[in-house]
Amino acid sequence: MTLPFKNRLHGVAKQLANAKLDALLVTHPADWYYLTGFTGESGVLLVERGGVTLITDGRFTTQSRDEARSVRLVEQQGALMPFTGQFLRAKPKRRVGFDSARLTVAQFQQLRKAAGSGVTFSPAPGMVASLRTRKDATEIARMRQAAILAGEVLTAAIKLLKPGVTENEIGAEIEYRMRRGGASGPAFESIVAFGDRSAQPHARPTAKRLRKNELVVLDLGAILAHYCSDITRTVYVGRAPDRVKQWYGAVLEAQTAAIASVRAGVACGDVDAAARQVLARHKLDRYFTHSTGHGLGLEVHEDPRLARGQQARLEPGFVVTIEPGVYVPGVGGIRIEDDVAVHSEGTEVLTRIPRDLIEL
Amino acid sequence: MTLPFKNRLHGVAKQLANAKLDALLVTHPADWYYLTGFTGESGVLLVERGGVTLITDGRFTTQSRDEARSVRLVEQQGALMPFTGQFLRAKPKRRVGFDSARLTVAQFQQLRKAAGSGVTFSPAPGMVASLRTRKDATEIARMRQAAILAGEVLTAAIKLLKPGVTENEIGAEIEYRMRRGGASGPAFESIVAFGDRSAQPHARPTAKRLRKNELVVLDLGAILAHYCSDITRTVYVGRAPDRVKQWYGAVLEAQTAAIASVRAGVACGDVDAAARQVLARHKLDRYFTHSTGHGLGLEVHEDPRLARGQQARLEPGFVVTIEPGVYVPGVGGIRIEDDVAVHSEGTEVLTRIPRDLIEL
Repeated sequence: MTLPFKNRLHGVAKQLANAKLDALLVTHPADWYYLTGFTGESGVLLVERGGVTLITDGRFTTQSRDEARSVRLVEQQGALMPFTGQFLRAKPKRRVGFDSARLTVAQFQQLRKAAGSGVTFSPAPGMVASLRTRKDATEIARMRQAAILAGEVLTAAIKLLKPGVTENEIGAEIEYRMRRGGASGPAFESIVAFGDRSAQPHARPTAKRLRKNELVVLDLGAILAHYCSDITRTVYVGRAPDRVKQWYGAVLEAQTAAIASVRAGVACGDVDAAARQVLARHKLDRYFTHSTGHGLGLEVHEDPRLARGQQARLEPGFVVTIEPGVYVPGVGGIRIEDDVAVHSEGTEVLTRIPRDLIEL
Repeated sequence: MTLPFKNRLHGVAKQLANAKLDALLVTHPADWYYLTGFTGESGVLLVERGGVTLITDGRFTTQSRDEARSVRLVEQQGALMPFTGQFLRAKPKRRVGFDSARLTVAQFQQLRKAAGSGVTFSPAPGMVASLRTRKDATEIARMRQAAILAGEVLTAAIKLLKPGVTENEIGAEIEYRMRRGGASGPAFESIVAFGDRSAQPHARPTAKRLRKNELVVLDLGAILAHYCSDITRTVYVGRAPDRVKQWYGAVLEAQTAAIASVRAGVACGDVDAAARQVLARHKLDRYFTHSTGHGLGLEVHEDPRLARGQQARLEPGFVVTIEPGVYVPGVGGIRIEDDVAVHSEGTEVLTRIPRDLIEL
């Protein structure tokens, strides 16, 4: 087993010991990839202090032998949770933690029924998620590449913004260029929003055509070597009216303040407040209808949440998005987003393209 | 409220009455889209016999007003499940069904705690999923278009298979062509597997380059007007050796038998058996390591499962994939997949490209 997996499994074993558990059931694909390298989409990873077992079905057995060599492989017979429960029933040590945020009520019912009363299940939410928040140098290096690619693709997409082009066409070009740049795919469905559709923070591309004098919000991310990036820029097609310039300036100031507040030891809620205070000063806070950012890594939304009142503190190795915005229904929206890595000394903005308002 | 939504909500109301419930909590995006047209990614839809309420956050309120006009909108304050629980606490009638297959253990704990002891929660798995299995004529028409697009993209991708091209490049071209053809995106991460990687039923594209005398498995699907398609073809680059021809012939025969067995009233397990029996006759059944197919619609995997022993019966309006395969570790794999709609009289293969072995 290669070193990062060994270290990570050791991290789980330590948490198991602290929680007085014999084993952890890992039921989320990004979590088992993090611990073993297995990229299959269905299975259960059982982490015990003495070793690791992967239960998966026939679609993934060949793949799992290639990807997760030191893991004991058990091929599932019948449905996953009943089989896993039966498997646990035969174990001598049976205090089992499960991630309550990653197991459905129905799965848990099946599991518990098949395991019988000799197995004690304890909710152990986020054991792997909390390890995943602290990226090591290799992970940060991958995320840097993913962020650079996203910036390049976004820059190329802006060049394609001519009146008459559709949101769908821009969306297609974005994802194609990511793939050509080495991404396995987009980290999420790209957001391409022209005109008043930019007032929807999560607008998906439609057949709408670009016209002169419209705002355009582009929000995209690439998955490169398994790690995600996430970037947003807002541009104006034409000469921006004063109102748009003022909004843009306020959002940029809010984002700058939030990025400046990021460092190891700071509470996540304080980063959110840094952005929100700037927008309040511009009397735009009521148009900022979401939180300031989120963790980023193997998935596009990870811990921590940079939201109102969040007490969790940033640590070295965290990578977060900083993405304040204002959205005025019926008029339009503006968002600026970058990815920021927290180092033990200082921070690093991984996305490296300019942030000033572009007028096309 | 437009007719399909009204009919579908009526279908839920009938199930609620049968189950003696006052309300259903719909917690899965494809389910709430099916019932209301809302395409947002976060929220809870509360279906009561007298009306429908959507709880969602500030990112989706503008969008939900546009998309789901007759639905009562409640903007969430704080986290979703605690807020929803509080909302239910204030209701006079409080026997609430929830989809246990779509709610995590942690979400359910938060919900129950916030709702208090006056609300009774009952698992009601699959109420909306079971309605979704029976597609109406409009849905089938959309799926026909999605299937035709997938066939066109697959045909185009086969033309790009020249020695030296990488799996990643083919993957990028597939998804770009889907988007250019009107798709909002791929229905799942396209499978592109060259050579012995084709022995992995779910191989994701890599930097591997195509060589002469290799098998290629392409498995892709488009989302067009919200509905999914799913198609697989296997080609040989060069003159196929006899062994490959024999395997291909057996898989094609198995798929043909399974498709012929599809009709309203037939048990899903019998369709699976039809494919499996043919492969057994060719002594290849042990290489057929997954089930014969699955339902298809708003999502790429829906009810029913066409798997061993499944008692559920096909009904008019069901759309299922038929996708037997053989996978020989270290050598290669072959899969042929089409989408089949069940009509009250007869069936319709929605994917319309040839199924014979192509040698490039």
